[in-house]
Amino acid sequence: MSDEPKPDPVSFDDIVLAAHRLEPVVRRTPLLSSSLIDQQLGARLLLKAEPLQHTGSFKFRGAYNAIVARQASAVVAYSSGNHAQGVALAASIRGIPASIVMPADAPMIKREHTERYGARVHAYDRYREIREQVGEKLVADMDAELIRPYDDHFVIAGQGTVGLEVAEQCAELDLIPDVALVCTGGGGLIAGCALALQHHFPAIQIYAVEPEGFDDTARSLAAGQRVKNEPNRQSFCDALLTTMPGEITFEINRKRLAGGLIVDDGEVGAAMGTAFRHYKLVVEPGGAVALAAVLSGKIDVVGKKVVAVATGGNVDEDLFARIIASNT
Amino acid sequence: MSDEPKPDPVSFDDIVLAAHRLEPVVRRTPLLSSSLIDQQLGARLLLKAEPLQHTGSFKFRGAYNAIVARQASAVVAYSSGNHAQGVALAASIRGIPASIVMPADAPMIKREHTERYGARVHAYDRYREIREQVGEKLVADMDAELIRPYDDHFVIAGQGTVGLEVAEQCAELDLIPDVALVCTGGGGLIAGCALALQHHFPAIQIYAVEPEGFDDTARSLAAGQRVKNEPNRQSFCDALLTTMPGEITFEINRKRLAGGLIVDDGEVGAAMGTAFRHYKLVVEPGGAVALAAVLSGKIDVVGKKVVAVATGGNVDEDLFARIIASNT
Repeated sequence: MSDEPKPDPVSFDDIVLAAHRLEPVVRRTPLLSSSLIDQQLGARLLLKAEPLQHTGSFKFRGAYNAIVARQASAVVAYSSGNHAQGVALAASIRGIPASIVMPADAPMIKREHTERYGARVHAYDRYREIREQVGEKLVADMDAELIRPYDDHFVIAGQGTVGLEVAEQCAELDLIPDVALVCTGGGGLIAGCALALQHHFPAIQIYAVEPEGFDDTARSLAAGQRVKNEPNRQSFCDALLTTMPGEITFEINRKRLAGGLIVDDGEVGAAMGTAFRHYKLVVEPGGAVALAAVLSGKIDVVGKKVVAVATGGNVDEDLFARIIASNT
Repeated sequence: MSDEPKPDPVSFDDIVLAAHRLEPVVRRTPLLSSSLIDQQLGARLLLKAEPLQHTGSFKFRGAYNAIVARQASAVVAYSSGNHAQGVALAASIRGIPASIVMPADAPMIKREHTERYGARVHAYDRYREIREQVGEKLVADMDAELIRPYDDHFVIAGQGTVGLEVAEQCAELDLIPDVALVCTGGGGLIAGCALALQHHFPAIQIYAVEPEGFDDTARSLAAGQRVKNEPNRQSFCDALLTTMPGEITFEINRKRLAGGLIVDDGEVGAAMGTAFRHYKLVVEPGGAVALAAVLSGKIDVVGKKVVAVATGGNVDEDLFARIIASNT
């Protein structure tokens, strides 16, 4: 029938398959809690600790699933951040070469980490070369698969295993979550988590959380179509600085999310301080926005059971030291 | 027969009973790993993450076990640190009053944390009052049990559940550990862990790790009898500043430990930096000595499977910030 709703481009079964592929290698990260924070909020807050995942972020999940599902014999990715490390380690575990395309002026430490996980880094000149041309040549030369950071069915399904684990962990706690908050850049993680969580908890409300200036998902949800961020905005949430929602991710998210919440850098720093003090967890700025939304009261959580996903912990020592010392 | 070896004052069964009592409330903390650190060491290192335990340290385990086993209707403890918080939360979960005796000049933050977990703090004047007299009066007035920080059968058994969990987690990983390193103050945690781990892995070698100046267990093991630390020594490992091994703990440890290892403050700071960068875990100085011993090469671990227990994560923001910024 013509008015039958279009199915999601990624299904719950795709996530179950991803979980099966990941099972031998992924870490089942804990769902942390703090009685003092719960007291303070008047809520039950469960913090999914993906900084404890391989390479310090959830990105390993999607990369590994995509590599296995596509039976890739070589991979290429564009990234100087968590996606680069996730792809590098996933390829290394599968015993295939990975080439990561990064601007020549990316911080040395990012290059180093990616190389230590076994990938080859291809630096390009941001002013004289076009990233896609560098990447496409590598893909052709290596007969490689390009692993996109979020707008990819298998990547979304892999990230969705975070939601699947949360659902299992909630079941073990005999608890039905009311709300889930997920840090959102291109929207791959939240799309996968929404599919997995709503399968188990049909009434759960899922919110995208974004840093100020990069609220493209919040505005796109409100507009009913994908809109871009204003150029030249800044945020220290380096993991979340996408231009606009992905095509596939937004097709899922527009139907499944309850809305978008926005936090500023000060709220993010305070959340990093709370993660340090009360959860003993290192969380990077972009990984702390969901926790920041709860702690700064962007949504009423009183009496509710709330899941917040902490997505990564790859943060420079000096920045982290400054943030926690100024959030005592 | 007169030459039959004297049994340990705490048995493996005591630890199994403690685990049974703790099961509904304790967190099963994860065993973390890092492929980059393992590469660097040429070993497989498993870090037991007790900073993720309730109150941010393993101390909750022993306190809770002692309270339940003794059917205490009120408790008293001397501590301004992790033991105070462990006793406070354990009593609060059991619905009984807890009074914690602390010097009036203890840092406000320690008092505050203990009170937030539901205990009453009794400050005493270190120069005019005798701590034991304050405590004994409280015990009599409240008809309370005194919960000692380490020299107590039930506390040792409770801390031993750390070892029991490690044994289960190693079995899940299909792995037999060769060596275990445990941060040691009075020796309660390592005594319990030795009983639990040697039950499952008879060949495992267990080392006490202590900060420089507070190596009473190392020297006592070498001397075959309990010896004290020199007075007026300093270390920033505030959780481990005991005067000498406990009587019960040493009776267990003298027979079961392979020896003692000593680390200096610089090595501890470097280990805290590694825990931050590679394990995304907040570890306090006293909780990092075991990891420090491995990383600084105090023992040859090449080709081995090594467990290091990270015992706690209660560290002041400013101190932590200074340490990680100077250990990049």
